[in-house]
Amino acid sequence: MSDLHVYDTTLRDGAQQEGLNLSVSDKLAIAVHLDELGVGFIEGGWPGANPKDTEFFARAQRDLTLRNATLAAFGATRRAGGRAATDPLVRALVDSGAPVVTLVAKSHVRHVETALRTTLEENLEMVRDTVSFLAGEGRRVFLDAEHFFDGYAADRAYALEVVRAAMESGAEVVALCDTNGGMLPHQIADVVADAVGSTSARVGIHCHNDTGCAVANSMAAVDAGATHVQGTINGYGERTGNADLLTVVSNLQIKQGLPLLETGRLREATRIAHSISEITNVPPYSRQPYVGASAFAHKAGLHASAIRIDPDLYQHTDPMHVGNDMRMLVSDMAGRASIELKGRELGYDLSGNDELLSGVLAKVKDLELRGYTFDAADASFELLLRREVEGKGLDFFAVESWRVITDARGEESALSEATVKVVAGGERVVATGEGNGPVNALDHALRQALTPAYPELAKLELIDFRVRILDAAHGTDAVTRVLIETSDGTTSWETIGVAGNILEASWQALVEGVTYGLVRAGVSVR
Amino acid sequence: MSDLHVYDTTLRDGAQQEGLNLSVSDKLAIAVHLDELGVGFIEGGWPGANPKDTEFFARAQRDLTLRNATLAAFGATRRAGGRAATDPLVRALVDSGAPVVTLVAKSHVRHVETALRTTLEENLEMVRDTVSFLAGEGRRVFLDAEHFFDGYAADRAYALEVVRAAMESGAEVVALCDTNGGMLPHQIADVVADAVGSTSARVGIHCHNDTGCAVANSMAAVDAGATHVQGTINGYGERTGNADLLTVVSNLQIKQGLPLLETGRLREATRIAHSISEITNVPPYSRQPYVGASAFAHKAGLHASAIRIDPDLYQHTDPMHVGNDMRMLVSDMAGRASIELKGRELGYDLSGNDELLSGVLAKVKDLELRGYTFDAADASFELLLRREVEGKGLDFFAVESWRVITDARGEESALSEATVKVVAGGERVVATGEGNGPVNALDHALRQALTPAYPELAKLELIDFRVRILDAAHGTDAVTRVLIETSDGTTSWETIGVAGNILEASWQALVEGVTYGLVRAGVSVR
Repeated sequence: MSDLHVYDTTLRDGAQQEGLNLSVSDKLAIAVHLDELGVGFIEGGWPGANPKDTEFFARAQRDLTLRNATLAAFGATRRAGGRAATDPLVRALVDSGAPVVTLVAKSHVRHVETALRTTLEENLEMVRDTVSFLAGEGRRVFLDAEHFFDGYAADRAYALEVVRAAMESGAEVVALCDTNGGMLPHQIADVVADAVGSTSARVGIHCHNDTGCAVANSMAAVDAGATHVQGTINGYGERTGNADLLTVVSNLQIKQGLPLLETGRLREATRIAHSISEITNVPPYSRQPYVGASAFAHKAGLHASAIRIDPDLYQHTDPMHVGNDMRMLVSDMAGRASIELKGRELGYDLSGNDELLSGVLAKVKDLELRGYTFDAADASFELLLRREVEGKGLDFFAVESWRVITDARGEESALSEATVKVVAGGERVVATGEGNGPVNALDHALRQALTPAYPELAKLELIDFRVRILDAAHGTDAVTRVLIETSDGTTSWETIGVAGNILEASWQALVEGVTYGLVRAGVSVR
Repeated sequence: MSDLHVYDTTLRDGAQQEGLNLSVSDKLAIAVHLDELGVGFIEGGWPGANPKDTEFFARAQRDLTLRNATLAAFGATRRAGGRAATDPLVRALVDSGAPVVTLVAKSHVRHVETALRTTLEENLEMVRDTVSFLAGEGRRVFLDAEHFFDGYAADRAYALEVVRAAMESGAEVVALCDTNGGMLPHQIADVVADAVGSTSARVGIHCHNDTGCAVANSMAAVDAGATHVQGTINGYGERTGNADLLTVVSNLQIKQGLPLLETGRLREATRIAHSISEITNVPPYSRQPYVGASAFAHKAGLHASAIRIDPDLYQHTDPMHVGNDMRMLVSDMAGRASIELKGRELGYDLSGNDELLSGVLAKVKDLELRGYTFDAADASFELLLRREVEGKGLDFFAVESWRVITDARGEESALSEATVKVVAGGERVVATGEGNGPVNALDHALRQALTPAYPELAKLELIDFRVRILDAAHGTDAVTRVLIETSDGTTSWETIGVAGNILEASWQALVEGVTYGLVRAGVSVR
């Protein structure tokens, strides 16, 4: 194992993200995931300054058993003109029980003057006093040198003096922070190399992504001698976010050969990134490196036949390393090879079945020309393929007719009411559903009509609905494309409908969504 | 101006993104935005291989007037064993009319063998033959050397030989592609420096973001001597996406002082990034560097008073450079100032009218919180402002009720029929309209009801209709935002509606659309 520190600040700096708000239980749940991933340090928050964080550390002491990680409490150096020993905020750091205390300190002359409103010498004294007090209390002390890179540009000697003051007082690490996030890799490399060369400090790095370089900046710092790297899961953080710790660790471990996490831990990366996004309620970013849903998804048909021969020629690493998967997307750019691959994913061996492959391909191309897009509607593609392979086995019900009425009076909100007539399980059923919109009403009516024959449908839920108007060249006959995501509580699937009429397109996607739900549940036609 | 090429491939490589599907009209609209931004080259697609792209170039030749940018057609080197002069796909590139042709060629020995299934020498011959044929046809030829960095690692001499073959045959640029996206900045820097040093080529760079380093990799290549940089708006692209061109250009121009775009053009970056995401229907990423909604957003707290003293201590650059805004202190003032400016545009002098300005601002903030977005619906904003200033003068008609029924029988297409009851010109009118969709039917019924009192409405036409579901977490319970574009034959305007019910939102936008049409025609209430 490398002795480079992997220091996670999701719970503190990550929580600064706009719209992100974590309860104490959320924080505890995330800490468990972080420990499973195998990070070295978990910064839990700022006890004393924030009651929620005080409670987090109290409950962590009681309830949280960490396998691998060490908890860190974040706080500031003591007040100007006071003493660390009697500063209530410094006391709260000791009381938190965290074995590590990470102190933020100013290292930029202008910030000392405008934000702290004290002298440069007093700021150094605040660092010395607070670090040595906490070290004397038996804590491991790390220092976050805030605005370090801007401060170094403004006054190199002073910025480095802050690093020395911390080290000489007993700090174990001084993390150089690009607080405003404006640095580029070569600047980070130069400054880190200077700090490592001209102080005796163990140097760390803390980057933000304002130039889109947070990952590269963190790597440049490690190259230049930093041995402690901070970041957040999914790159959460204020403004453009912090360095995405999973990307940094994956790069260092997979590309640079630094064994940062215990063997096998990185394979949990995709699962953990997604679990944490369930807790934060921030939708996962499909284009996220390594762990994103699209990170190993291939669309271009050109490559599909070659991918079959040697997937490693078309992926920068094996997605298994991070617990992700290669996915073939079917689109009008696809060829037979990608349909064959997709079939294999679904458990059909279609190799050599040229007639079927050509038939499916022709159908896909025809449908995509009419506005379908199967790369966004995996379940509809699977149904298409299954219908070709299995024939009539998917005709769970027949639709006789449907109708939806929406009306509003004056300033009142509109109401929608749908009636559907279907034959299912040998019975003709007429059912009515209401909703706050026409699709909602159709969804309710359809599932009400089918539930007597297929009670499995009761637990399905429509969780996302997207609409796109596809223009036709002549303006009169615009086509509407609807994508619907349906969930059975444990997993979800996307289906598609395309029609001139938006409600007809929605109806198609709804029908596909429940049909797929029945296929997935292993139900036979009744 | 720097002579570094800014080469946009949103329309070709960006369109490889999962779920992204652009019509020809979408592509033309994006090209207009790209030209406004001031990129040097717009890669429009692959004519010949993709009928949609063939049509794009045909329509671009006829309808697209570019101020600054040059169009590029993408294509491949000729088939193994053939001749460029008789290869139909090469012919299609000439026929596209694009002044630049960008040819993709293999530069990795294993890809030549497994994907092209030809000899290394024939691959070089394919490069020479195709480049020189197209140069002979008067085209500027750029070469995309696919998988170059992996190819260089596998066989440096052969990879460089491909670069030389292209240059010696008349290629103007050879762009080195990190097709699988697995490179890190130091690797890119080393290879680019070698390619620049050991060939006479003008070297370009094309990066993907699989290691989270696409921006840094592009910058490293420019540092190492590349003078042509490729990327996509909003970083669209396959898997984790391509290098985000706006971030790369902002870094090079703002941080490195390279004047890539004409003065003032970069100030359009935020607006253009968001307009393009309206077209692609990919929700904007709030943490996107420079142009994201959160990129300059500060959570109020510790630093608030210091930010007031000197905002530059807390932001890495002035957001004005990219047309973005710091979102904390400034918003109130900037909000009122822009409302005052808008008023002046409409002929109202609102300076000093603090009460009215505050009232409008409060209303706008409240509506935007509920999902309205006035950037995309100028006409609705104008109506809101006019209502505040002029009071009742815009009440052209009163709506009593509306209803729309959509039904379908078996496999038949759905039909929609709407009934609206309004009071206009002192008369109560009941009118019915049919349509191929519910919004279409409502539009017909509404205009039929109003035309007796306002014959000016007869010439209006609904020309665009866009729907976005906001806050998708609750499926069809989410709020729906509808944008409608209405034309009077000479000009067009956008109006907005937001409601839980998609048809209610559509109805609001329709009512606003005809109201604005009456204001615009100078009609008084009858």
